[in-house]
Amino acid sequence: MTPAPAVAFLDVNETLSDLAPLADRFEQVGASRHLLQTWFASTLRDGIAHAASGGYAEFRRVAQAVLLTSLAEVPHLTTPPDEAAEHILAGMGTLSVHPDVPPGIRALHDAGVRVATLTNGGAAIAKGLLERARLEDLVERNVTVDEVQRWKPAPEPYRHACRTLDVAEGDAVLIAVHPWDVHGAKRAGLRGAWLDRAGRPYPDHFERPDVTGRDLPELARALVGQ
Amino acid sequence: MTPAPAVAFLDVNETLSDLAPLADRFEQVGASRHLLQTWFASTLRDGIAHAASGGYAEFRRVAQAVLLTSLAEVPHLTTPPDEAAEHILAGMGTLSVHPDVPPGIRALHDAGVRVATLTNGGAAIAKGLLERARLEDLVERNVTVDEVQRWKPAPEPYRHACRTLDVAEGDAVLIAVHPWDVHGAKRAGLRGAWLDRAGRPYPDHFERPDVTGRDLPELARALVGQ
Repeated sequence: MTPAPAVAFLDVNETLSDLAPLADRFEQVGASRHLLQTWFASTLRDGIAHAASGGYAEFRRVAQAVLLTSLAEVPHLTTPPDEAAEHILAGMGTLSVHPDVPPGIRALHDAGVRVATLTNGGAAIAKGLLERARLEDLVERNVTVDEVQRWKPAPEPYRHACRTLDVAEGDAVLIAVHPWDVHGAKRAGLRGAWLDRAGRPYPDHFERPDVTGRDLPELARALVGQ
Repeated sequence: MTPAPAVAFLDVNETLSDLAPLADRFEQVGASRHLLQTWFASTLRDGIAHAASGGYAEFRRVAQAVLLTSLAEVPHLTTPPDEAAEHILAGMGTLSVHPDVPPGIRALHDAGVRVATLTNGGAAIAKGLLERARLEDLVERNVTVDEVQRWKPAPEPYRHACRTLDVAEGDAVLIAVHPWDVHGAKRAGLRGAWLDRAGRPYPDHFERPDVTGRDLPELARALVGQ
């Protein structure tokens, strides 16, 4: 049996946080709730496009630009586009973790697995999210792609995170809801754990996860072999 | 004044083709029309994620996997998810060009600019689209990222396209509606022309286009200096 990983890196946006309440903010500025999913996918597309072309821009700047583009086409905004974008972005700092996150992080910690986060977003977002959930004492470090100026799933952030926590790639696991993130981690030499809360099919063109779970405690059990 | 480019590479999906009719196909299988935009942004995100992590998967496979993921969460599909995905994908082969495309391509051709396409999608999609619009005789070559196994905006496809058409990067221009594509072309050494049909703000974190136009004839005039 595979030994438990020494370090678990948790992705942040959507893996730890529930973005759903942001839909209310789209509605509050006069836009459709369903723009949330397109906005988030497009933000990832543009940030990852920087990585693919060898560059970098920080999450907030990319997310804001996508909002300004999307909101420019909404016919009856109740606030000017730049204020509307700020209102939505400010919501990122008020999100909560999914209910399975606290028991899942505790299970990893109790099994002796060191826990850190690794995010394409800002460190302040991850820090605030963990503090509101009173989980900050269980998380050793919030690593962001800003430190290496390259978005996941390029290999640099995963390897930088392993160096930062002083762990070999093969002894670390990346836990994420996003298949492209699991894929990038696997290609960088880490293990990959797919958190599949919705029971979705895994895209067959990406590297397969080593373990899959419907919630974080289930994934933790699979990782530590209980 | 900058001389006219020797070769213009036209992006295909959304730049030449109008994807809007695909929304009907989402509706026909029992899904919401607004899934179209999320699906297309997510397909680009996942294909570009392969490029960022040093790999490749073909457009159809990526697009299909995103559809299967999205449709798995639709409560009342009228057909099984795999058939629904096929129905939507088949629509890619029935699209038409935007009305400004024929006069725009003719303007480039008449000004002595060689015209080619460069797409993240399949060559058959580009070829069929141009044939239905009776433009195939004005387009020298349909280049796809499949030939170099890397999605735009990684530098490889742009450089491969220039080699294929035997043109120096600085004598070629990439025309696209997508800022991330203009960005990738600029970083690879080509000129970048942004086709902005909707009057959107250009994201300030991407390399700026050399020229911008609200339709392809306007862009053609700007490129050939008329």
